[in-house]
Parts: sequence; structure tokens; C-alpha cells
Amino acid sequence: MKKFINNVENVENEMLEGMVDAYPEYVKRLPGLDVIVRSEKKEGKVAVISGGGSGHEPTHAGFVGKGMLDAAVPGAVYTSPTPDQILEAIKAADAGKGVLMVVKNYTGDVMNFEMAAEMADDIETAEVISNDDVAVEDSLYTTGRRGVAGTIFIHKIAGAKAEAGANLADVKAVAEKVIANVRTMGVALKPSTVPAAGKPGFELGEDEMELGIGIHGEPGTSREKIQPANAIVDHLLDKIMNDSVDYSGSEVAVMVNGSGATPAMELYILNKRVHDVLKEKGIKIVKTYVGNYMTSIDMAGASISLLKLDDEMKELLLAPADTIALTQD
Amino acid sequence: MKKFINNVENVENEMLEGMVDAYPEYVKRLPGLDVIVRSEKKEGKVAVISGGGSGHEPTHAGFVGKGMLDAAVPGAVYTSPTPDQILEAIKAADAGKGVLMVVKNYTGDVMNFEMAAEMADDIETAEVISNDDVAVEDSLYTTGRRGVAGTIFIHKIAGAKAEAGANLADVKAVAEKVIANVRTMGVALKPSTVPAAGKPGFELGEDEMELGIGIHGEPGTSREKIQPANAIVDHLLDKIMNDSVDYSGSEVAVMVNGSGATPAMELYILNKRVHDVLKEKGIKIVKTYVGNYMTSIDMAGASISLLKLDDEMKELLLAPADTIALTQD
Repeated sequence: MKKFINNVENVENEMLEGMVDAYPEYVKRLPGLDVIVRSEKKEGKVAVISGGGSGHEPTHAGFVGKGMLDAAVPGAVYTSPTPDQILEAIKAADAGKGVLMVVKNYTGDVMNFEMAAEMADDIETAEVISNDDVAVEDSLYTTGRRGVAGTIFIHKIAGAKAEAGANLADVKAVAEKVIANVRTMGVALKPSTVPAAGKPGFELGEDEMELGIGIHGEPGTSREKIQPANAIVDHLLDKIMNDSVDYSGSEVAVMVNGSGATPAMELYILNKRVHDVLKEKGIKIVKTYVGNYMTSIDMAGASISLLKLDDEMKELLLAPADTIALTQD
Repeated sequence: MKKFINNVENVENEMLEGMVDAYPEYVKRLPGLDVIVRSEKKEGKVAVISGGGSGHEPTHAGFVGKGMLDAAVPGAVYTSPTPDQILEAIKAADAGKGVLMVVKNYTGDVMNFEMAAEMADDIETAEVISNDDVAVEDSLYTTGRRGVAGTIFIHKIAGAKAEAGANLADVKAVAEKVIANVRTMGVALKPSTVPAAGKPGFELGEDEMELGIGIHGEPGTSREKIQPANAIVDHLLDKIMNDSVDYSGSEVAVMVNGSGATPAMELYILNKRVHDVLKEKGIKIVKTYVGNYMTSIDMAGASISLLKLDDEMKELLLAPADTIALTQD
């Protein structure tokens, strides 16, 4: 295992310290806790929080800031955060108008966020569960579909709604609308290595790729010989667009997300094909994000997310955000 | 070679198309050329342009936009752009007040930018050559030191000076001041693979790292057994701080730059140590950037840059920028 680390047991802690050291203008850490909050709390608004295992950076702490999240709860690598930490995030983020919890559909995450919400009995909470991955129904860590990179559109859009002063019900409603309209599928060329494990989570032959990979390296839909980028994009888009969202004639947002070890060069090549295919289908792309948004440590791979927009989601997507990993005017 | 590509001969072209498709609000491509310019040209200011081989994304095209570059000229992967392309960038970027060319010190880059400047005889040009890499004097592709990630501080600071309306001499002067005050050193854990070559540019044993690596995988100062992250940072900082810039008691900007395949987790762990060491030395960090700013395709590695600031550089560093890869209010 070749990594810039000191001690596998201290990876999460040092990472969080390094992030807070780097960006005090955006985030601070609650003393003694694995909870990241905005460096300046905004009062009188619905708070939006998220969390999950570490290893997906910049998810989630990189999206804490104006127009997106109010707090993030990073667990150990690829491990759900504990209810006590989530409870502290709820308490710290609450600004008097309630807290929306954005949870990716993984059994441990859902259970722990719900337990924390129960413990926070004097704070109003609501929950949405993202499940944008079209690859598989049920899986190693889920009942139902997995929540993956499309979740970042929830952070952006629900975050903008909350920033604009909406109440908890309306912030939750727009988050649910994003969930209903976003679909994602991924592919891996090389596995990731959890520091504490010291070796890759799975093996892939020198000419193999895993289609439909999960963000923790969970098995996808098939393992195949690696194909040209365009053929891979076509396969992913085919699955995404033949799922339950009708994208025809619509306006969409695109995310071409890198898994951590895939260079920007390759993500842009994938994006070119996404645009070419969607243009040919008469689908209008309103906004595109290409980069490492929800990674899998050092996995080489990518995912494509497609969000069908209506006027409300479009306006909120294009609204300003100011976070470590996503800033727009 | 496992990569998301279609054809090794078309990598650069498809990458540029994919970038322009993704971010039309920031950049456009000059028709038929490998030149990226701002989607909306700003008239009446000094233009700042840069360029060099592709494979270092988001460098340089990712820094084209308000407060940074006016044009970028990407060559083939790890290959200098040609004078004719650079000339077109000069012509396109010039807005009546002259063009500053920011060139990394590589023999081919310097030669071709200077040739282009001569060809642009009716446009006033000036040139600065970055050489921030403290690892080696002279090298495979340079006489003198290599220009590496510290160059991005030139884009930011000279770009802000130009945006503020300064004349060519003053924009050049502040660029030279950055060059005089920024030092960088890198390290690699795994080599990069140029698509057209199809195999890694060098080999490293399973327990080896290359200290002082160049951004094209050029040999560094030594090949050693991999060490804990903190020891690696200490080594790099020691070389940087015992070079010719006296950082003691000063205000600095830090960049912890990823080489393309290094996850954010590890960059943050490196950054924690950078901050701990500098704090202990009484050096004040004004601004930190952690991420993939000047990559080496899919190399696993990182570099640390330290820029000693004065009031002018500090103000310009903190000024707004709005580009694909660096946006700040």
C-alpha cells in the first residue's frame, strides 16, 4: 500500500485536521468530535446536514458552506458515522427552523441518522434518502438502490432552498424532487484501498472493468473487458436513460464524477461523449460538473449522473454556492 | 494501460472538447486551434496567457477566466505547444494593452513562446519564466530549475493585477516578484502513463518513492523507501525553506498539490503536517490551496509550494477569481 499516511488508525482525524487547517474561511470542527460545520453559522434558516463514511472526499465536508450544507458528519473510512456524532451535528446545525438530513441509502447510514433524529427530540428533523444508483436493486450494504454522486445535487438544490429562507417542509420537498429526477451509474478500472485494510478491496484483471460499481467497491452489474470511453459512456447512459425518469425533451444537469485516481483528462473525454449523445437526443444541458465530487479513496473510475430539471430545481442549481469543493456566483 | 480514452491520437482534442462542453460559461476554444480563451473577452486590460504540454489538468485551461488567465495553449501530452498556436493565443487574448506570457521553465516551452512573441510583432508582449522547483538545477528538459505548481500563484496574482487595470510592466513586475518568492518540491509514489506511450514513464518499487520528481516524471533528487507522510513533508519543507527565500517570520500562501491519482484524503494529511510545521516556526499562513492544480496525468504524488507574501501579493492572491478550477469571492 503506497499512501501518504502516518498511521492507519489516525487517517480520518488527520484528514479532518488538514481540511480545517486549509480552509478556516469555510469550515471548523466541533471540538473533540468528527463533525464539520460552517465556520460562521447562519441563524434563522433550515439547516441541511449530511454524512457517511469517509473516503469519499470532498463529500461531504467539502460541501459545507453557503448555499449547500450546514454540517457534515464523516464516519471512519467507508463506515457509517455513529448516532452520537450525528446528534451533535443536528444540535450544532439547528438554527431554529429544523434540520434536513440528507442520507445516502446505506443500511448503516439510514439507521444511525434515524436514531440520532430520535435522540434529538426537541429539534425538528426531517430526512430524505438518496438512491440514485441505477445499477443494482439491493446490494451488499443496502435494501433498495444505493445513494451515490447524484446526492450532491440534493446538497446543492436543497441547500439553496434553505439558504433562501424556505421552511423545513419545502426544503424537504425539493430534496425529494431531486431524488425523483436524478439517476447515476458508475464504472471502475482499478479498485480502492482502505488504509486499515492495506490491500485493494477487490481485484480486476489488467483488461477488465467493473460496470455499475458501488462507491465502496461493491460489485456492479457485470465485469467486462475494458472498452473505449465512448462505448462505456453509451452503456452507462443507456442504463440511466432507460430507467424510470423520462429525460426526453427535458433540460438536465450532468455530473461526470471521478472516483479519486482518474485524471481530469479522462473525465473530460467521458464528458464529451455525454454531451454528444444528449445533444443528439435533443436534451438540453443546463449545467455540467466534471471532477472529483464523490470519490472512493484511490479508485480509478467514474460515474455519470443525470438530473432532469424543472424551473424550481434549475434556479436553485444555478444559485450561488461557496464551499471548499463547489463555488459558483 | 487502463484509461477512459477512445484513441490515443485523439486524447488532447477530445479532452479540450469535453472541457469546453462542460464549461461554456468560462471558456471557449478558438475554432480549429488548440487555444482556450475566456468565453467573454474583457477589453482594455493586459492579457495574461500561459501554456505547456497537456496532462497537467486543470493547468492551464482550468485557470482561464476572470482574475486569472485570458488564454491557455495546451500542447500534446507532455509536449510544448507550437509557436503558431501560441501566436494565435497572443492575438486572441490581446485587448490593446499587451500580453504577459507566463512560461514554465522547460526548454521547448521557452523557445516556442519566445518564437511566437517574435512573430506577433505588432502586439506588445512580455515574458516571465517560472522556476520554482528546488529539487534540481538543470534537468532532462531544462537549463536551470523547472517551473512547476508554484506557477499557479503567478496566474492568480498577475491575473488579479491585470484584472485591476495595471499596465504590462506592472503586471510583469508582480509576476517576477511571485517567482522570486515561491518555492516548490514534489514527490511521487507511482508513475504516470502517457496514453500514446501505453506504459508508465518510469518504474518504482512497491516500497519506493521518488523525491524531487518533475511534473513529467523526470528524475528527482533521490529514490528512497517510502516514509510516513510527516517525514515526507518534513523533507520537502526542509529543502524548500533552506533554499534562497527567507520565510522566517513571514506571511505565506501554501499549495498542497496532487499529481492526479492521489486522493484528497492524503493531500489533507500532508497539509496538516505543513501547517503544524509552519505554525511551530512562527510562519503565518494566509491562504491554503489543497487539491489537483497541476497534475501529471495519473501519477500518484504531491508537491508542496510556499509563497512568501508581501502586502501587494497578499491582496492580489485574495482578490476574486472565477475559473473552472479556482473560484473565490
